[in-house]
Amino acid sequence: MRTIHILNGPNLNLLGTREPGVYGTATLADVEQRCADVATALGCRAECRQSNHEGRLVDWLQEIGREVAEGRSIGVVLNPGAYTHTSVAIRDAIAGAQVPVVEIHVSNVHAREEFRRHSYVTPVARGVIAGLGPIGYELAIRALVEG
Amino acid sequence: MRTIHILNGPNLNLLGTREPGVYGTATLADVEQRCADVATALGCRAECRQSNHEGRLVDWLQEIGREVAEGRSIGVVLNPGAYTHTSVAIRDAIAGAQVPVVEIHVSNVHAREEFRRHSYVTPVARGVIAGLGPIGYELAIRALVEG
Amino acid sequence: MRTIHILNGPNLNLLGTREPGVYGTATLADVEQRCADVATALGCRAECRQSNHEGRLVDWLQEIGREVAEGRSIGVVLNPGAYTHTSVAIRDAIAGAQVPVVEIHVSNVHAREEFRRHSYVTPVARGVIAGLGPIGYELAIRALVEG
Amino acid sequence: MRTIHILNGPNLNLLGTREPGVYGTATLADVEQRCADVATALGCRAECRQSNHEGRLVDWLQEIGREVAEGRSIGVVLNPGAYTHTSVAIRDAIAGAQVPVVEIHVSNVHAREEFRRHSYVTPVARGVIAGLGPIGYELAIRALVEG
Amino acid sequence: MRTIHILNGPNLNLLGTREPGVYGTATLADVEQRCADVATALGCRAECRQSNHEGRLVDWLQEIGREVAEGRSIGVVLNPGAYTHTSVAIRDAIAGAQVPVVEIHVSNVHAREEFRRHSYVTPVARGVIAGLGPIGYELAIRALVEG
Amino acid sequence: MRTIHILNGPNLNLLGTREPGVYGTATLADVEQRCADVATALGCRAECRQSNHEGRLVDWLQEIGREVAEGRSIGVVLNPGAYTHTSVAIRDAIAGAQVPVVEIHVSNVHAREEFRRHSYVTPVARGVIAGLGPIGYELAIRALVEG
Amino acid sequence: MRTIHILNGPNLNLLGTREPGVYGTATLADVEQRCADVATALGCRAECRQSNHEGRLVDWLQEIGREVAEGRSIGVVLNPGAYTHTSVAIRDAIAGAQVPVVEIHVSNVHAREEFRRHSYVTPVARGVIAGLGPIGYELAIRALVEG
Amino acid sequence: MRTIHILNGPNLNLLGTREPGVYGTATLADVEQRCADVATALGCRAECRQSNHEGRLVDWLQEIGREVAEGRSIGVVLNPGAYTHTSVAIRDAIAGAQVPVVEIHVSNVHAREEFRRHSYVTPVARGVIAGLGPIGYELAIRALVEG
Amino acid sequence: MRTIHILNGPNLNLLGTREPGVYGTATLADVEQRCADVATALGCRAECRQSNHEGRLVDWLQEIGREVAEGRSIGVVLNPGAYTHTSVAIRDAIAGAQVPVVEIHVSNVHAREEFRRHSYVTPVARGVIAGLGPIGYELAIRALVEG
Amino acid sequence: MRTIHILNGPNLNLLGTREPGVYGTATLADVEQRCADVATALGCRAECRQSNHEGRLVDWLQEIGREVAEGRSIGVVLNPGAYTHTSVAIRDAIAGAQVPVVEIHVSNVHAREEFRRHSYVTPVARGVIAGLGPIGYELAIRALVEG
Amino acid sequence: MRTIHILNGPNLNLLGTREPGVYGTATLADVEQRCADVATALGCRAECRQSNHEGRLVDWLQEIGREVAEGRSIGVVLNPGAYTHTSVAIRDAIAGAQVPVVEIHVSNVHAREEFRRHSYVTPVARGVIAGLGPIGYELAIRALVEG
Amino acid sequence: MRTIHILNGPNLNLLGTREPGVYGTATLADVEQRCADVATALGCRAECRQSNHEGRLVDWLQEIGREVAEGRSIGVVLNPGAYTHTSVAIRDAIAGAQVPVVEIHVSNVHAREEFRRHSYVTPVARGVIAGLGPIGYELAIRALVEG
Repeated sequence: MRTIHILNGPNLNLLGTREPGVYGTATLADVEQRCADVATALGCRAECRQSNHEGRLVDWLQEIGREVAEGRSIGVVLNPGAYTHTSVAIRDAIAGAQVPVVEIHVSNVHAREEFRRHSYVTPVARGVIAGLGPIGYELAIRALVEG
Repeated sequence: MRTIHILNGPNLNLLGTREPGVYGTATLADVEQRCADVATALGCRAECRQSNHEGRLVDWLQEIGREVAEGRSIGVVLNPGAYTHTSVAIRDAIAGAQVPVVEIHVSNVHAREEFRRHSYVTPVARGVIAGLGPIGYELAIRALVEG
Repeated sequence: MRTIHILNGPNLNLLGTREPGVYGTATLADVEQRCADVATALGCRAECRQSNHEGRLVDWLQEIGREVAEGRSIGVVLNPGAYTHTSVAIRDAIAGAQVPVVEIHVSNVHAREEFRRHSYVTPVARGVIAGLGPIGYELAIRALVEG
Repeated sequence: MRTIHILNGPNLNLLGTREPGVYGTATLADVEQRCADVATALGCRAECRQSNHEGRLVDWLQEIGREVAEGRSIGVVLNPGAYTHTSVAIRDAIAGAQVPVVEIHVSNVHAREEFRRHSYVTPVARGVIAGLGPIGYELAIRALVEG
Repeated sequence: MRTIHILNGPNLNLLGTREPGVYGTATLADVEQRCADVATALGCRAECRQSNHEGRLVDWLQEIGREVAEGRSIGVVLNPGAYTHTSVAIRDAIAGAQVPVVEIHVSNVHAREEFRRHSYVTPVARGVIAGLGPIGYELAIRALVEG
Repeated sequence: MRTIHILNGPNLNLLGTREPGVYGTATLADVEQRCADVATALGCRAECRQSNHEGRLVDWLQEIGREVAEGRSIGVVLNPGAYTHTSVAIRDAIAGAQVPVVEIHVSNVHAREEFRRHSYVTPVARGVIAGLGPIGYELAIRALVEG
Repeated sequence: MRTIHILNGPNLNLLGTREPGVYGTATLADVEQRCADVATALGCRAECRQSNHEGRLVDWLQEIGREVAEGRSIGVVLNPGAYTHTSVAIRDAIAGAQVPVVEIHVSNVHAREEFRRHSYVTPVARGVIAGLGPIGYELAIRALVEG
Repeated sequence: MRTIHILNGPNLNLLGTREPGVYGTATLADVEQRCADVATALGCRAECRQSNHEGRLVDWLQEIGREVAEGRSIGVVLNPGAYTHTSVAIRDAIAGAQVPVVEIHVSNVHAREEFRRHSYVTPVARGVIAGLGPIGYELAIRALVEG
Repeated sequence: MRTIHILNGPNLNLLGTREPGVYGTATLADVEQRCADVATALGCRAECRQSNHEGRLVDWLQEIGREVAEGRSIGVVLNPGAYTHTSVAIRDAIAGAQVPVVEIHVSNVHAREEFRRHSYVTPVARGVIAGLGPIGYELAIRALVEG
Repeated sequence: MRTIHILNGPNLNLLGTREPGVYGTATLADVEQRCADVATALGCRAECRQSNHEGRLVDWLQEIGREVAEGRSIGVVLNPGAYTHTSVAIRDAIAGAQVPVVEIHVSNVHAREEFRRHSYVTPVARGVIAGLGPIGYELAIRALVEG
Repeated sequence: MRTIHILNGPNLNLLGTREPGVYGTATLADVEQRCADVATALGCRAECRQSNHEGRLVDWLQEIGREVAEGRSIGVVLNPGAYTHTSVAIRDAIAGAQVPVVEIHVSNVHAREEFRRHSYVTPVARGVIAGLGPIGYELAIRALVEG
Repeated sequence: MRTIHILNGPNLNLLGTREPGVYGTATLADVEQRCADVATALGCRAECRQSNHEGRLVDWLQEIGREVAEGRSIGVVLNPGAYTHTSVAIRDAIAGAQVPVVEIHVSNVHAREEFRRHSYVTPVARGVIAGLGPIGYELAIRALVEG
């Protein structure tokens, strides 16, 4: 049974508590539980991690790259949070370690501050889902498995 | 049974024939059939239209706004094609007629020409799905119905 | 009795229903009735049309250009709606067909999104009235007749 | 009988003498006389002042703000002249003293140098009239009284 | 005998009447007649159409793409008029339907307003001819046939 | 006993009355009284002035420069108001007359319109305090005396 | 007794040793001692930490957010150092965890390289103090407690 | 004997005391004396004024425009100081009152801050002299008289 | 028999050897031979020169300007190569010496690097032909003679 | 025997495995071995470290600054990887801790995406070597020792 | 008797013949004669040269640098023509060879195309004179000798 | 024995005399001697040339391209000097003639004026060495031979 990684970046551990008008009331634990359920339903195993550290996300993406190369993982549903807009390191990890990535944002980043419109990640991701709320994680898993 | 509209903008009638390296080989008819199937499975009816005319898309969005106001439609899965990047009229139709929209792009618009990175539509859409291929339409329907 | 044309662009048929906080509650029919009254009071005849199609607006402006050349029309009160910001074709129709135009916007376009600050039309119009609500149409007619 | 203030900014005392091709031949005195007539016809009293000093215009706008708060004035028809493009102080006076303002420009500022396209005043004004010549002052009075 | 399509965009039906200082005095009918003559001389058949509607130009380009694929047409001499600067839809139609295009402008667009310097069409066209007047159409036909 | 000058620019005489959500309810008189108290407590004398005129602020800064040179003043707590963003003359007066300046803004200028993010004054000031409300004046006095 | 957190970002452990012409000679230990003294004098307890790691600063801000929510802390005096200009993650932590922040910079960042003029933090901070040297920390504490 | 006006803008009364490394040690009085001498030598009369007020410079330029129209003055040697970079009002006064102006700067404005590279005045001046020190005034007089 | 000059700028002596995918396989000698033939057919004489030196191209354009003034030459078919994008001197030579120029580029410069989209030459040329390969030279000659 | 530090930033542990077309096939271990050999040959000792964490690189640079100050190290050959383009913290560490740095990039960053053209590091480095492959490390060591 | 060099760049040999509306009718020979006269009157010798070649101007500036170092020349009156806007090489020659330069332009470059507003030369020149016509050369000589 | 060409652009003949703080005291002759020595040590022959003329550098690069094609030369160590930032012609010569180039700058161009940060040459060079002083030439030779 292959793994799908769910990686959440900085401040996503605040989900459900932070600006609920923007992000909704589902907590990260809720979201991860739903991801686990969907993954199971699709015959995979979800592995969920969160970090506020850019470097740690890079470390994890490199590890996952090795898993993918060995056929043990399908790829990553990645919500890079604030690093979406500032991290070339995460972009390079994805491209360098050849990790299939579906990028996901809970809120509609394009309807917020100007600087949130640019993503360093999207051009090296397979695709992106934004603004659809926590259900976006489920759709992203589905896209990775069925896409 | 409520309707979900699938609106496709300019040149999407070429799907499956146009730049298959970028857009895949599924034709618009294939995509619309799958949309119909998914909608039915979710208890709705899919209605699919395509036009190369910006004004016609505006006309349709206004009509759908009236259907939504009357509870006859859930909203639109909209692939504005090239008008994504140039049409304020479509944006204003969505905002003015208060149409729930999930924007969808078959290709990863963020990995192409610079001018494709900007969407007039996304800020007034509920959310956006891009780069995941034809499956994106199905995910978008699911997001409209379950989101 | 010479004609004054009142041309309204995309989504202005939604006037009175769309974002009343921004556009007020007068419908397009109300506005057109007031235009007719003012025109009559000033010894002219108002002819009112609306379209969501850029090309149709271009067609109409060319026709009016011929009427103006033949002395049958004074000019146009034009609310180009969203095409204000995106249409070089409408600009070229005005300049090419030598149509006297007073541009009008119901809302204060300069107090909204950045992209609404630029008008392709104003430099080829005689002048512009913006932000004064539906009364702007009446003032524009007056400007065309008395200006 | 409530007052309508007509404030003219720098160099507008040159009206009628300065670049008649751009500004016409009516002098400031002519314009002010017509404003007085229109105001009277609409049941108000026009009070007209001109200054080349940014600070004085700010002083005046603050005074008028007090008059408006006390119900003695309806607001201002303001031609900020060159300060349109450079004065944040005038903008702040309008917003801070809560003065209803209709901004007016005799010439079509959008058809001239690029830097004349930007107005610090418009976003805090009720609306703007530009390019219609001296008749613009009359229309602006009408908009303040009837709008 | 294969067809060469001559497509003219918005306002080019005004040729010969509109700003003769910029565009010359030859009417569109004159130009089309000369195109027909040149095409005949080169062993082809010219088919000439004009529209002010972006969507119609897209429709036509798609049709021509099919003719080209079937060997019935050599390609298009396209004067996109104002849509040169604003239409991604026309660009996508050319690229998507794989239509050989020579872009032509009667006036020297690079010597006019700044916004006329950018063409969405040129990068997907075979080449471009600008500023040489109506003879440009004839040269473009020659380029398509002999190039 | 040396003087500390408190200079307030345009519209700051409206403090406490203008946009209280942004600027609070303390009036300029309140603020000046607190400045006087703090200055006294620190062994200095506060001298407070306000003007809407850029030129007058320049005059005053030059005078203060002479006082500083003669050891009669410590410097200026300067709230340039709107001139912060537009006045090179005030910047040059500070640099030219070698006046020690602590710049102060009551509101958080960086959280407002884009154009308020740039200050011509800060690079020639000793430092800047912004967004902390009227207490900022007191902190600025303290910085001048103890810094 | 409530806590005030003093968070220093990258390279601020070099204070007093690094570019003394720009940053002065007080070491970070000196600064922290003075913060402790001022906090005590104002009836609070200062807790001082420094890190070169963006992720750790985010972790800390989230923790402090919880303390603030529970009434155990007043907020943070934050010198984000270089992350001022590059970290959206820190901005999001402040907004998401709802931490009252006074931003402080020892040097006058506005008088240095262009890229130091932009702060991602200020728009979500209560206010900012810059360029006043180490005394800025004390003023910031005072602003948090008394402001 | 016709007059040549020497107008100096903000902070030029500090000449000789302000940043001597940039502006030299000649005071404004010295400069004005030399101007008087040169003017006399060329058969004219120099009239010298300085103001820190933008509005006053506009007033003066309008007066001089009348003198020029009546043949009593040749024109102005104008050092607009900081207003060079920010004043559209002075530009409009020059153009509107048709004053022959030679613009002069003591320092090499092009070798200083970026914002000093742009002059609103130069395009409406006859010419400009910059960076040559106080002798620039004399050359400018000569240019007005002999040019 | 009047002369048509064919001037080729830097690196065009490499034609046929340099990046054949972009420029084709015809050498400069081939191109010049075809130019000679076309010119002869049109009753003129082609004179062909190439230089890598910007100054020499300026020298030649000035000479040709004299020939044109004397009726000995019709003008120039100019491929400025890399100087297209960087040479104001060549632009000034064309405008100053009043040389009729048709600008030609073998490759589609608009489909290459961003900096190749800007031409200093086009605004002072009669027109431009780009992207049509070596046949462009022949069309340009034809345009000069028949246009 | 003094130390030369070889610091590699994010994703450089993937060297030899990641995009070999861009980075070559030498692994980081290979590169470090060659660095050790060259350093020994030049009478120094190479110490090699890699991290994906920006903060850790800052920590290390500060440590090395202390070693340099004590004469135990010559400096750093630094490949900041993706942090080249985004890290002000690393820049400040180099400047603040006064570390002699030669920046090195394996690939030609100037021939890749636009955002890779800007380096925050280079202005505070002694120099930079880019695009020469793994040999760049050896040249950089040589430059540090012999330069 | 020391030399003053008068260097004229590209196309200035066309003076008097080229666009007389912009440049006047004095030929380069006329201008050089007047320069010689003025230089003689001031006790110097004028040496005048013109070239269309950037490299030659660099060669000459280096030679003059040597003359200046040996006390044989005072410096250069340099009209760089079109190279003003494009030549870093000329700028570097002036700075590198330490040549005192007064830059001169016959026309008012600031009232022409946008790209003529930027000069690479001015920041390394002593000063600049523009727009005053041929008399500018004489004033520049005077500035070099007397300044 | 194959040749390595050392080409130096404008003003590099001033090396050792020009701004020694920036460029050091080694003369071009010194540098060329060291290049010769290093080349010999590596079994090659160095051929050194310098020119201030862009066109001549293009000529030389074309010649070297032929030598490289015939196996007589390894490539070029090129210091384009000021042409780095302005010459598309040199870029095209390198790409067109397929010359292996290592670009070298003596000073750290990235720590100087903004315009020196952009190089037209680097994207077509194999790599670049900057800021390491004259030793950079030796490293570049080594890179060409051993890289």
